[in-house]
Amino acid sequence: MPHSADVHAFPLRVRYAETDAAGLAHHGSYLPWFEAARVEWLRAHGIVYAELEREGYHLAVVEAFIRYVAPARFDDALLVRTGLVDMRSREATFVYEVVTDTAHPRQLANGRTRHICLFRGQVAKLPEAVRRLAGA
Amino acid sequence: MPHSADVHAFPLRVRYAETDAAGLAHHGSYLPWFEAARVEWLRAHGIVYAELEREGYHLAVVEAFIRYVAPARFDDALLVRTGLVDMRSREATFVYEVVTDTAHPRQLANGRTRHICLFRGQVAKLPEAVRRLAGA
Amino acid sequence: MPHSADVHAFPLRVRYAETDAAGLAHHGSYLPWFEAARVEWLRAHGIVYAELEREGYHLAVVEAFIRYVAPARFDDALLVRTGLVDMRSREATFVYEVVTDTAHPRQLANGRTRHICLFRGQVAKLPEAVRRLAGA
Amino acid sequence: MPHSADVHAFPLRVRYAETDAAGLAHHGSYLPWFEAARVEWLRAHGIVYAELEREGYHLAVVEAFIRYVAPARFDDALLVRTGLVDMRSREATFVYEVVTDTAHPRQLANGRTRHICLFRGQVAKLPEAVRRLAGA
Repeated sequence: MPHSADVHAFPLRVRYAETDAAGLAHHGSYLPWFEAARVEWLRAHGIVYAELEREGYHLAVVEAFIRYVAPARFDDALLVRTGLVDMRSREATFVYEVVTDTAHPRQLANGRTRHICLFRGQVAKLPEAVRRLAGA
Repeated sequence: MPHSADVHAFPLRVRYAETDAAGLAHHGSYLPWFEAARVEWLRAHGIVYAELEREGYHLAVVEAFIRYVAPARFDDALLVRTGLVDMRSREATFVYEVVTDTAHPRQLANGRTRHICLFRGQVAKLPEAVRRLAGA
Repeated sequence: MPHSADVHAFPLRVRYAETDAAGLAHHGSYLPWFEAARVEWLRAHGIVYAELEREGYHLAVVEAFIRYVAPARFDDALLVRTGLVDMRSREATFVYEVVTDTAHPRQLANGRTRHICLFRGQVAKLPEAVRRLAGA
Repeated sequence: MPHSADVHAFPLRVRYAETDAAGLAHHGSYLPWFEAARVEWLRAHGIVYAELEREGYHLAVVEAFIRYVAPARFDDALLVRTGLVDMRSREATFVYEVVTDTAHPRQLANGRTRHICLFRGQVAKLPEAVRRLAGA
């Protein structure tokens, strides 16, 4: 993870709908968690993603990777620690760590998503407000 | 269910992602099944819903009801039997029956969805192609 | 809704994953919201549903109804107001109201779910802790 | 992809529930597709995953990677071409390619999932029926 000052921790509770017949959080539930955590990371840095979209921007996911370290279960209180690790003129990469929301957090998963910036459907430079976060 | 000639049977297999920690298909999985079955009912009646949408129409769900009769499990082969039971100038109601895809089908669930027709976001008459199905 | 003292308001933000190509929260997203809100209603009344399950209980959904009044959109801050409206020895019915989390809340949806109590897979009396809430 | 003889093509249609407000299939929809395709790959090779689970086995996903090449849209007919690329005594890796189900298929996405074998919750050797596919 990048330097802790730039990491935002997004709290969530595992919903029953997010579990599967193995009795655990389904592995497909983590990408929506990463996404919600990314939106909150942006908000914590002054960027409302819904507004970017209304202006015509879209940070399309072009790659996603998840490593499942230990299972999460229904009703577990978790944190998704999120950071921005790389930014180029037209793309950005976020990293994520899912940990238990406990006094001594244990890592349950980690991952990353790479995004390309689209403006009205065409590859474009990241909006100025995002580029200013390059040092974040 | 309406007269069998007008009923379309949509086959599906319960996905692992659609189960929950109780070991059964999650109750939230049925609305996407109804929706996929409704799209196929329309296709079987000559209407491609994706094309209606490209023309500006949208059949917004305004009510949904599901009765869960018996559980479905991962990998179960099911049929969603779908029919159109009511149509007015600006709305339509579909009914559904989820049954096992077996020689002697057992009903696992049933339900209905009521839809209002929108054209570019405004309530509007159902498109002509749909209204022609009134007797279907 | 029942008397306000017994209603728990569960806050959520609409996730991007919960939207659909119509640009709105998908109608299938509401049942997982109701479920998460129901779990928090129980917790607010001293019952941890995950513990009930570990004891062998399961409040299986046997009916669900949702009325969609006005659309919700990505990133909308919402409240799911939840109440228990009926309890019998082996079943319970919850009602829900989805409202905007604003100074002057607007109702976006409402619904109800009926549950039957299972103990190790068999229909059974609701656990004592739940039955004590009959007047709640 | 491995040699074509060992690749199974799983057909699907993009459901409305699998799209998002960008008007495309949501990036989180692909892992459930990979999973359904993997189950069918196993079935095509004589293994019913649901039976393996009843025996106590579970192929837990420990890593997932997806590369999104071009967008999929509601109602698109797709194929998920699936292959087994690596097998060790206790783990296996599957690869996937999502292509249009057309005369001249275009690749929309590709990915892989790595699995560890659990037997009653403990890391274990893959079941004999799976190990026999090592050459597949």
